[in-house]
Amino acid sequence: MRNIAIVDIGSNSIKLVLAEIKKNNSFKIIDELKETVRLGEGIEEDNKLQEGRIKVAIQTLKMFKNLCNATETKEIIAVATAAVRRADNQEEFLNRIKEEVELDVQVLSGEEEGYYDYWGVVNSIDRDNGLIMDIGGGSIELIWMKERKIKECVSLSFGSLDLTRHFNLYDSITSKQEEQLIKFLTTAFNEVTWLKDIDCNSLIGVGGTIRNIAKIDQRNNDYPLDLLHYYQLKKSTVNAIYELVKNKDLKKRKKISGLSKKRADIFIGATAAVATLMNLYNLDKLLISGKGIREGLIYNYLYQDKEPNSNVLDFSINNIVNNLNLNKKHAQHVHKLAKVLYQELKPLFKLNEEEFEGDIDKILKTATMLHDAGNSINYYDHHEHSFYMILNSGINGLSHRELLISAYIAASHRHTKYDLRKYNLNRSQFTDIIDRKGDDKEIIRKFGILVEIAESLDRNMNGLVEDIQCQLEDNRFIIKTISKEDVELEINDALSVSKGFEKLYNKELIIL
Amino acid sequence: MRNIAIVDIGSNSIKLVLAEIKKNNSFKIIDELKETVRLGEGIEEDNKLQEGRIKVAIQTLKMFKNLCNATETKEIIAVATAAVRRADNQEEFLNRIKEEVELDVQVLSGEEEGYYDYWGVVNSIDRDNGLIMDIGGGSIELIWMKERKIKECVSLSFGSLDLTRHFNLYDSITSKQEEQLIKFLTTAFNEVTWLKDIDCNSLIGVGGTIRNIAKIDQRNNDYPLDLLHYYQLKKSTVNAIYELVKNKDLKKRKKISGLSKKRADIFIGATAAVATLMNLYNLDKLLISGKGIREGLIYNYLYQDKEPNSNVLDFSINNIVNNLNLNKKHAQHVHKLAKVLYQELKPLFKLNEEEFEGDIDKILKTATMLHDAGNSINYYDHHEHSFYMILNSGINGLSHRELLISAYIAASHRHTKYDLRKYNLNRSQFTDIIDRKGDDKEIIRKFGILVEIAESLDRNMNGLVEDIQCQLEDNRFIIKTISKEDVELEINDALSVSKGFEKLYNKELIIL
Repeated sequence: MRNIAIVDIGSNSIKLVLAEIKKNNSFKIIDELKETVRLGEGIEEDNKLQEGRIKVAIQTLKMFKNLCNATETKEIIAVATAAVRRADNQEEFLNRIKEEVELDVQVLSGEEEGYYDYWGVVNSIDRDNGLIMDIGGGSIELIWMKERKIKECVSLSFGSLDLTRHFNLYDSITSKQEEQLIKFLTTAFNEVTWLKDIDCNSLIGVGGTIRNIAKIDQRNNDYPLDLLHYYQLKKSTVNAIYELVKNKDLKKRKKISGLSKKRADIFIGATAAVATLMNLYNLDKLLISGKGIREGLIYNYLYQDKEPNSNVLDFSINNIVNNLNLNKKHAQHVHKLAKVLYQELKPLFKLNEEEFEGDIDKILKTATMLHDAGNSINYYDHHEHSFYMILNSGINGLSHRELLISAYIAASHRHTKYDLRKYNLNRSQFTDIIDRKGDDKEIIRKFGILVEIAESLDRNMNGLVEDIQCQLEDNRFIIKTISKEDVELEINDALSVSKGFEKLYNKELIIL
Repeated sequence: MRNIAIVDIGSNSIKLVLAEIKKNNSFKIIDELKETVRLGEGIEEDNKLQEGRIKVAIQTLKMFKNLCNATETKEIIAVATAAVRRADNQEEFLNRIKEEVELDVQVLSGEEEGYYDYWGVVNSIDRDNGLIMDIGGGSIELIWMKERKIKECVSLSFGSLDLTRHFNLYDSITSKQEEQLIKFLTTAFNEVTWLKDIDCNSLIGVGGTIRNIAKIDQRNNDYPLDLLHYYQLKKSTVNAIYELVKNKDLKKRKKISGLSKKRADIFIGATAAVATLMNLYNLDKLLISGKGIREGLIYNYLYQDKEPNSNVLDFSINNIVNNLNLNKKHAQHVHKLAKVLYQELKPLFKLNEEEFEGDIDKILKTATMLHDAGNSINYYDHHEHSFYMILNSGINGLSHRELLISAYIAASHRHTKYDLRKYNLNRSQFTDIIDRKGDDKEIIRKFGILVEIAESLDRNMNGLVEDIQCQLEDNRFIIKTISKEDVELEINDALSVSKGFEKLYNKELIIL
């Protein structure tokens, strides 16, 4: 177990992320610091980082270094982006950091910035294709991801700060200003010749400004989950938000629910960039990635710059299993048995996997692998704590809907507390995401009881029931346990759900 | 790290509790099994445990033993209570268990049962005095606890099963039956001569039946917390619940929200016993202890039968800090600094500690020691996860009100997310327990910002700011840091709350 630190020196802020690296490449973010240094401020005057800003930057980096020392973090990966990249006094700045802070900073080219954005996205979002867009203060990166590889990548040399300054977008804007802005953006995007060839309809958005667009939409809809990663917006919604912000002066803009006051002044240009890009290239959906360059640097470090993660969800679940010290063997065994049960009982589900919004395999894997996660809070009512853990542990690779259904299935894995009435499990809060009645409810309950049977069949937690064979008859469902040992405890425990099973599946449950 | 198992062979059920014992006497419940064996069934006929019941009991114990083996639990503390205590064929039963299960069972006398009840209560409830009552199927224990020691203890040789059988209370009852029941109970209690001398007004209730009385009340009031330990009922409420149940036949009783269907048939006698005892000896309040004989056996084992825990809350917090692997040094330092800050800012609180319902020291200790508990779920939004953890980790030694206020203070320890708007932090749910506006809100916000400053002053987590001296002036509050090192990071971080501080305390915040 050791720590690594990522230091990200941007035009607007300098950030530190501390991560604890554990066995099997699993990791855990343990601390974060952000200082709004505005290193890019005044750079347009003489193309130099200004002395006042440099001093603050060095002071900040010293503090960060102190925190690294205090936490015995020896490996520090420090990178700088647009502001330093552009500055004529870059070398002087880097030398001063080296001397005064004893820190080596790597200045990323625009393409490298895009590369690490891609590493952050491909390891945390389970999509094969998409156009990634990262809007920073001083640059915009566009990365075409095809079959989980970079097909094309470009860095545009303007960011939200530049747009705001150049078109004077701080306060209210005229239609002429807007016209010029959109024209500029259209020309800039059109110069990226490969954009006309992209064969995907999703824009994957990275960075604080894009996350802020999503936050406005969530507030607007009273969205019940406080998760931005994997949140999705339609093109029309992005356009509507752009209309909303561009028609307000700064004072009114600051009052928009969800819009950060600190970003309100530079928000029009960035939102225009997203909307224009989506409109130009028929990108129907904006998918938010909460992970970008800093996470990309962590993953890239873990995988030694080789191939990214081949299975985002698996990596993420394993990460949590390791971080919480869960019984992995037991979890895997419950997953295996639950899959067999589902395979056999499938005909009794009204579920049409083709039409169902979500991946059943992923849902079942998440629910079973993490069904006991809540134990780390309290053994009592741990199924409910598992609900909370699944929703809040930062699992990557699932849509919000898949995440929520997985959490409910895990919460249903002990029938004695079946009603889920408690304050944090109230399904009515999530009706935007899952049906309160109908199919989703059926799936949650039917899978819940399967996970319960599978967990019971591994009651001793050491795989006594090696496997099962099932038989679906007219009136009965028979599970034959395969074992070399006495598994009465397991069978007994599993049979305790037989009443509930009969109610849901309309079959008698027999376990031999 | 090793496991111990507690096996509790009662008249109605046989239970297994597995606990993991860690360094510093901390422990964690990791598994539980309960089988409704009804070992006491039929014993009234010839004063013998019946062969059918014995067989089921042995089968159950074998399963339990298997689970112990599978989890490498070598120390098993097995005890038997009333049913076995009474039975003429006790020795034969014990020998058969020894032979067939290889398990030594200790038969507890009534007084020993009371003794372990007391150990469970005194280590988990922060009260010096009270009358403890444990209602089992075959006996009732009464323990007078005075200054945290047993002053008197008695075991009555009837329990809820006996009362039900003897007075035929299964279904609806006549007023004559009731009269006889109350007369019997009054006589039995009056025979305990020391009861007239008790100088406390709280009854501390242990056992499933008493917990069930509380659950009915909670459902009735739509109580927002799902916690029974430390829940309190007035005498009048207990009497009202008794009236409610005694006037219903079995079918209607089973429909009472909160009453377990399995207990509905034996519930009248037990409730009558509680109500009668409270009425006879002016016990104004019934305080529920979720911990009884099994937890008592664990604590007694940990403390090697010597003195119980001298500080319930401290033990419990340490237990959680150890179980979650939190940074104890940092937590203690934040606690220390927050105490100094509160001491100095006290004049600015509208709070009257005498009138305030709750112990400020305990609240501040809980909020500071566990402010980072949520990190074990996710670093991001960890203050909110700390809220969930504090509420659900099974902390002993706090009233529900103290627990909830502590959780809110911990959740407020990062001002950037100050609004606590998320679904699980909605204060309106808890208006029965804490004020939504007014004093409680002020306390939460003012303490929240103190914890935030204290945490910032230990930003490096290694006590760089050794201590602080404060000065309260007309317009300013000055914190002088005492340190041998550069603490700019700490001061800088702490000053980031200065706006919020000024708003709440109406003083400028200066940190030197």
